[in-house]
Amino acid sequence: MKTLLLKKEEVSKLICMRETIDAVREAYKAFSSGKVVQPDYIGIDLPDPRGEIDFKAGYYKANEIISMKTSSGGFVDNPAHGLPSGMGNILLFDAMSCALICAMDGSLITGLRTGAAGAVSVQVLARKNAKKITTIGTGNQARMQIRAINEVMKIEEIHAWSRNPATLSRYKEDIEREFGIPVVLANSNKEAVEQADILITTTRGQGPLVDADWIKPGTHIVAIGTDQQGKQELDPEIFRNAKIVNDSIEQCVTKGETWHPLNKNIITRNDIHGEIGEILLNQKPGRENDTEITIFDSTGMAIQDNTTAFKIYSNAIENSIGTSFEFF
Amino acid sequence: MKTLLLKKEEVSKLICMRETIDAVREAYKAFSSGKVVQPDYIGIDLPDPRGEIDFKAGYYKANEIISMKTSSGGFVDNPAHGLPSGMGNILLFDAMSCALICAMDGSLITGLRTGAAGAVSVQVLARKNAKKITTIGTGNQARMQIRAINEVMKIEEIHAWSRNPATLSRYKEDIEREFGIPVVLANSNKEAVEQADILITTTRGQGPLVDADWIKPGTHIVAIGTDQQGKQELDPEIFRNAKIVNDSIEQCVTKGETWHPLNKNIITRNDIHGEIGEILLNQKPGRENDTEITIFDSTGMAIQDNTTAFKIYSNAIENSIGTSFEFF
Repeated sequence: MKTLLLKKEEVSKLICMRETIDAVREAYKAFSSGKVVQPDYIGIDLPDPRGEIDFKAGYYKANEIISMKTSSGGFVDNPAHGLPSGMGNILLFDAMSCALICAMDGSLITGLRTGAAGAVSVQVLARKNAKKITTIGTGNQARMQIRAINEVMKIEEIHAWSRNPATLSRYKEDIEREFGIPVVLANSNKEAVEQADILITTTRGQGPLVDADWIKPGTHIVAIGTDQQGKQELDPEIFRNAKIVNDSIEQCVTKGETWHPLNKNIITRNDIHGEIGEILLNQKPGRENDTEITIFDSTGMAIQDNTTAFKIYSNAIENSIGTSFEFF
Repeated sequence: MKTLLLKKEEVSKLICMRETIDAVREAYKAFSSGKVVQPDYIGIDLPDPRGEIDFKAGYYKANEIISMKTSSGGFVDNPAHGLPSGMGNILLFDAMSCALICAMDGSLITGLRTGAAGAVSVQVLARKNAKKITTIGTGNQARMQIRAINEVMKIEEIHAWSRNPATLSRYKEDIEREFGIPVVLANSNKEAVEQADILITTTRGQGPLVDADWIKPGTHIVAIGTDQQGKQELDPEIFRNAKIVNDSIEQCVTKGETWHPLNKNIITRNDIHGEIGEILLNQKPGRENDTEITIFDSTGMAIQDNTTAFKIYSNAIENSIGTSFEFF
């Protein structure tokens, strides 16, 4: 039985952002049409100063693939030993036989598919005349969001703010060089947010960084950072009159940004407009006018890894890339 | 970063049953001394006639290894396509960095470590003068139990029964050839059980196969088959006056054989003597006289996979076996 092994370098050449956006769109539609089995994930926390490792499995009935992603993060001492602070692998099983057909490096996929998530939400929830993007947070995921959203709209200007000024200037330099989009460095989070047609939050924030008063009518918010209890980026008051869209309602109400306004009784579960998959399937409307504030709360789902990794695998097979190994 | 890949054939030569017994004993002691983090496992059921795939993770603080076992079973159509009905792989991560240090075929480990579990229980719970073993069930795991127990005592005679007479004669032939131990084929389960000093049940039974009246005083029972709701091998009345030992109380009271007498109010949770790790750590007594009936309920734990796979990995490193692969 042959298992295809794919290295990080191969993975990076086997998928482009546009394909990732298509894969994530497919994942959301699949999830909201009952074609996905996605059990609760397993997480193991290591003692400080180490981080955690998670195991996320997903079965997609249309491609008949089961994926298992292992991903670690927060190992701050790793770089001193020549290793990244987070690593990952993805296993793909043929769901007809449960044979392991592929094992690939998974360190790029989470970043890619999370960036693509923002872009998919922009397509259905941002104003068609949106031009200015504000990023709160200037790390790898902020770059990924720009890379993905740049595929689906014309970005005229980026406003950026970070609690860490040192990363700000590097972010400006990188974005301007890679995409030719001017980046304005804000003096405060307020100043940055007030400019936004589309607001993206990608921090590890543990308390609100964005006040409700700062948000213009018509803004689309992409809330990326909060994917577990204890994290928070937005003033929960923002949710009061917004159109709230989740990737998975079940996940977002327990560990997403959506948990906070629920917990403070600012909204009830009935105030959640729906899942993005429902909008993509035309079961629910996306943006309906130029003044509503829309929020996309992304906690990340195994099925995004599944469809993205399967595209990588399919491209590898088509191009005869990778190393074949027989475990038995 | 180098990951060691081990094929099934290499795995089979890299560990013997005696080492597996040592690894499982270590696992039980570790579990009962708080050195193990073992989250609930993930399971995905596929539509009929396919089976299921499980993902079991365990972190052992002493060896600083995190293991993840993927194992599938019940894919009855696989053999027609040249594949086994169940397959598996084990990933080992260095818990200091979460680097993936090894990926090995895992199809042999579950059988080996489950066989070893029975042998470990025999060492602390069977009568010292036990000679006759009865196996209810004559499949692969019954053979594994004999192979393991044969390492820790002298078996003089085996009595066997199975609902499937066709497998009985093959079992007799195999056991007599491999171990030189005479196998008596019983005409009924009652006839077989009445002979037992040690009774081993390894079926996929979904109702009691062994009556309480058939069990002699002093019998040690190794209950292997029941590891999830819906399975049952023993008359729950057997538990009423027996010394009940679990691998993990938490698991056994929800999905082991121990669930049945609890559910029928034949015993309460307080009637469970303890975990086998507690006995191995000398925190609780094992067998205390030659007349008590002892039951070891084994549901299987990720930490058994962890210590067994780590022994295989260590032996591979020491003997320079396997294929090195760099995912990045």
